[in-house]
Amino acid sequence: MNDAELLAAALQEARTGLGEGGVPIGAALAVDGRIVGTGRNRRVQQGSAIRHGETDCLENIGRLPASAYARATMATTLSPCDMCTGAVLLYKIPRLVIGENQNFYGGEDLLRQRGVEVVVLDDAECTAMMAGFIAENPELWNEDIGVQ
Amino acid sequence: MNDAELLAAALQEARTGLGEGGVPIGAALAVDGRIVGTGRNRRVQQGSAIRHGETDCLENIGRLPASAYARATMATTLSPCDMCTGAVLLYKIPRLVIGENQNFYGGEDLLRQRGVEVVVLDDAECTAMMAGFIAENPELWNEDIGVQ
Repeated sequence: MNDAELLAAALQEARTGLGEGGVPIGAALAVDGRIVGTGRNRRVQQGSAIRHGETDCLENIGRLPASAYARATMATTLSPCDMCTGAVLLYKIPRLVIGENQNFYGGEDLLRQRGVEVVVLDDAECTAMMAGFIAENPELWNEDIGVQ
Repeated sequence: MNDAELLAAALQEARTGLGEGGVPIGAALAVDGRIVGTGRNRRVQQGSAIRHGETDCLENIGRLPASAYARATMATTLSPCDMCTGAVLLYKIPRLVIGENQNFYGGEDLLRQRGVEVVVLDDAECTAMMAGFIAENPELWNEDIGVQ
């Protein structure tokens, strides 16, 4: 399981979300090099205020001991918002792989300050999918990141 | 609706959670001085990794426009973890009332740095309930805050 493979699992979730009419952001979590779960933004699908890609992934996996998160890498298709940044910090996930940060630049600086290894893959498909979604759904996108 | 009344609604949720065998932390959100929703930690009740008091409150309320969060005050019985700190920042909730921070000191400094007004009420019942829970359930508490 390399970073590109983990991101591919996150990107597949984002594609699924786009097909559902949702915000196309996905995430995946690997522990000891194996994917243990994936998730996607479900604002539209579930009327959810807290199910972003990363938090949906954590929720789908369910309760884990701190020792599992400590051996994990999370991948997300887009730079994480403040809430998802905080979720990574809460569970002390040591490594975050980000598909792209051109469409949104989230909590990467805080993550690095707190010792998380942050890797940005600058993936062309992640960037293009998100750019297209934002252009077509500016109000939904603003709602998702708490912007008036 | 003053701060004590909003905290009382959060504390009632914490009591309910304790009665369910859960982590006794509750939250409530007021918009324009009226309570629009409440929530409680559901780690035990729903096998949840992301439903802390504050995030459960936001989820129970559902999708709101950014303009509503901008007029909101949240109350929480305990100083917020990194994830819930991030949720407050994501939605730009301008004011957070905290029951107590003796048992756990969370993201208050970051919230203040980012312009959130943080009020700590140092409530005796919040403090005693949380202290009793932690003493009786140290492993569950550690899981909830990502500590090995």
